[in-house]
Amino acid sequence: MINVAIMGHGVVGSGVAEILINHSDRITEKVKTPLNVKYILDLRDFDGLSYSDKFIKDFNIILNDSEVKVVAEVMGGVNPAYDFVKSCLKAGKSVVTSNKELVAAKGAELIKIAEENNVNFLFEASVGGGIPILRPMVQCLAANEITEISGILNGTTNYILNKMIVDNMDFDSALKLAQDKGYAEKNPAADIEGHDACRKVCILAALGFGKHVYPEQVKTEGITDITLDDVEAADTFGCVIKLIGQAKKLADGRVTAHVRPTLVSRDHILSGVNGVFNAILVNGDQTGDVMFYGKGAGKEATASAVVADIMDCAKHLEARKYLSWEDGSDNYVANDIDEKGKLFVRLKSDNYDELVTRFHSVFGTEGFHYVKNQFTKEITFITEEDFESNINKKLAEFKDCQVKTIHTML
Amino acid sequence: MINVAIMGHGVVGSGVAEILINHSDRITEKVKTPLNVKYILDLRDFDGLSYSDKFIKDFNIILNDSEVKVVAEVMGGVNPAYDFVKSCLKAGKSVVTSNKELVAAKGAELIKIAEENNVNFLFEASVGGGIPILRPMVQCLAANEITEISGILNGTTNYILNKMIVDNMDFDSALKLAQDKGYAEKNPAADIEGHDACRKVCILAALGFGKHVYPEQVKTEGITDITLDDVEAADTFGCVIKLIGQAKKLADGRVTAHVRPTLVSRDHILSGVNGVFNAILVNGDQTGDVMFYGKGAGKEATASAVVADIMDCAKHLEARKYLSWEDGSDNYVANDIDEKGKLFVRLKSDNYDELVTRFHSVFGTEGFHYVKNQFTKEITFITEEDFESNINKKLAEFKDCQVKTIHTML
Repeated sequence: MINVAIMGHGVVGSGVAEILINHSDRITEKVKTPLNVKYILDLRDFDGLSYSDKFIKDFNIILNDSEVKVVAEVMGGVNPAYDFVKSCLKAGKSVVTSNKELVAAKGAELIKIAEENNVNFLFEASVGGGIPILRPMVQCLAANEITEISGILNGTTNYILNKMIVDNMDFDSALKLAQDKGYAEKNPAADIEGHDACRKVCILAALGFGKHVYPEQVKTEGITDITLDDVEAADTFGCVIKLIGQAKKLADGRVTAHVRPTLVSRDHILSGVNGVFNAILVNGDQTGDVMFYGKGAGKEATASAVVADIMDCAKHLEARKYLSWEDGSDNYVANDIDEKGKLFVRLKSDNYDELVTRFHSVFGTEGFHYVKNQFTKEITFITEEDFESNINKKLAEFKDCQVKTIHTML
Repeated sequence: MINVAIMGHGVVGSGVAEILINHSDRITEKVKTPLNVKYILDLRDFDGLSYSDKFIKDFNIILNDSEVKVVAEVMGGVNPAYDFVKSCLKAGKSVVTSNKELVAAKGAELIKIAEENNVNFLFEASVGGGIPILRPMVQCLAANEITEISGILNGTTNYILNKMIVDNMDFDSALKLAQDKGYAEKNPAADIEGHDACRKVCILAALGFGKHVYPEQVKTEGITDITLDDVEAADTFGCVIKLIGQAKKLADGRVTAHVRPTLVSRDHILSGVNGVFNAILVNGDQTGDVMFYGKGAGKEATASAVVADIMDCAKHLEARKYLSWEDGSDNYVANDIDEKGKLFVRLKSDNYDELVTRFHSVFGTEGFHYVKNQFTKEITFITEEDFESNINKKLAEFKDCQVKTIHTML
């Protein structure tokens, strides 16, 4: 028998407890020994549960109990999770977590402490909820050099954008619906401003490219500026707008890391990822694109990923070391480089006829796709592929107009 | 340094040799020790390669060399691969293979022999080429009870169907194009008759549900009867036709296993899997649907999966035992049960007016979607959800007409 402690009894924590207790037969069969939930740490009281006797309020009970071999940290937030996890690892306990904020901020350090103490620090649930992604990326794609990771990393924003695309809802109504359905928090900032996706980009980039990327190094833009007009205009070009998190390896060894609304062609596999689903596309030099898809959040999905990590720790109480990366550095993330791409642009001016003339004189008439609308006094187009600096130089000539640009994956 | 032997120098085998030799730096860094290709077994001569000195024609050289710790079997076919793999495992060598025919026919037995000899038998490349699927299914979804696995498991047939859907090509032209492009073999039977997908269903079902399913137990139907008319008719209903391999767990512990052309809604994530790509959807009771997507074949993709398995063996020279299943049995696969579903039906008769009357009197007029075409004298429809026996009883009343049915995932 192996003793397990759970720190936190919120949505994910209660899911972990329920799976470990209700599905103990299945788990014992696979691990070859029973897993016993010895403690659940939470400051709140939970009476009337079949396992109410397991609750404790003092972290030191877990820390000082040498029988506890595996600890699940599902409290969320960097503090006090960081101190608790560090102490557990140093005490020779393996730790698993679903806490993306913690891993994005302190992953490299915690992995190193785990290695020094010959225990495991696993965090499959921190990216993509129940979608297997971190382990496959490291183990199965081991023979590859990973060159690019991009994906739909936040279910809440994908749900909102999807409602705008499919049901012509405006942003506010779609956000309200997401809140009513429990997909978005009352304070939705972490989701709609891209911070949640940003943390996942950090973890994916760190694992894929071997060096820590910190949240503040990721250029992060949310979906709050995306209007129904944008969505409809994108549709005219056979595209949908998705919030895409992306990290790329550059030839000089540095990386770029972004979270931003992005036009995706309807032919692209990511365009079919609807509702609260997530999908992560990984490009390896040998294997090409592979994609991992599933529910990126939700109690059962996330909890089952935490339990799978607990089971892995229980089967291998000594360190497995397959997840690891180096510390980051200041100049490692190079978001200021001048990348080539195509930009989606909406130009609007009351002086419409003059706008049309100027547009053609600056951008030409051929080699790209544009739509002119004299009623809305707007020109919408997707530029030719070019360096962003060149495109911006051209756009500077429209300072007196309304100009809106969105990145593309075209 | 760990010595490796490669058996077979065809498409995949040469890819494995090239990755191991050309990317040895990357591999050494990850494995923490160099991997040395000591022998390549092939009956043919390969002169002029940088590694021509490694070729041998006698299997016993590998078998009797105790320095060889890991053997990659990439010859294909059951014989002599089966004898070679068995001998290697018994001699204490770990074996990795991309040979789906071998694993589908002899997987349970070879896993057992590997366990008895405390070595690994890994075969990630046997399903989905470079797509990580077997390991994630077993490790990451460990806390789940897997209830259903379905997917597009053969790139050749998906390419052909895609050409029919997108470019209105007929079956023969699409097959010819696939052959010209090297996606289909000169003798395409294994692909277009569904046998290749059938073997993958066997392996997925065995891993997912824990018991061997043999190829002859899978109800297998290819795409040779699918016409451009079928594809166009499906389109009218917002669907595409895909060759779907599927295994389901029944409440009584038995399973069903099929490969067959299937109508998939354009809203379904599998409908967006185009060209030679594969995708496997796994349903777990906790995590819901997760999907794995990527190139299902091709030299580099498949070879990189073989190399990842070699690296895993090299890192863990003793058995890891996470891949395992029991022997199958006669009555384990229950394809004869009466399942509920919706069927796509095309009815045609020269006596069109009478057909319309009879159709409505048998199937009714409401609650399902139908299209009547007096010019082609055809009625196309998707039945209400019902037991297959009930639907077939109704269809028996149209014996004098042309009747074509296709299963659906609706």
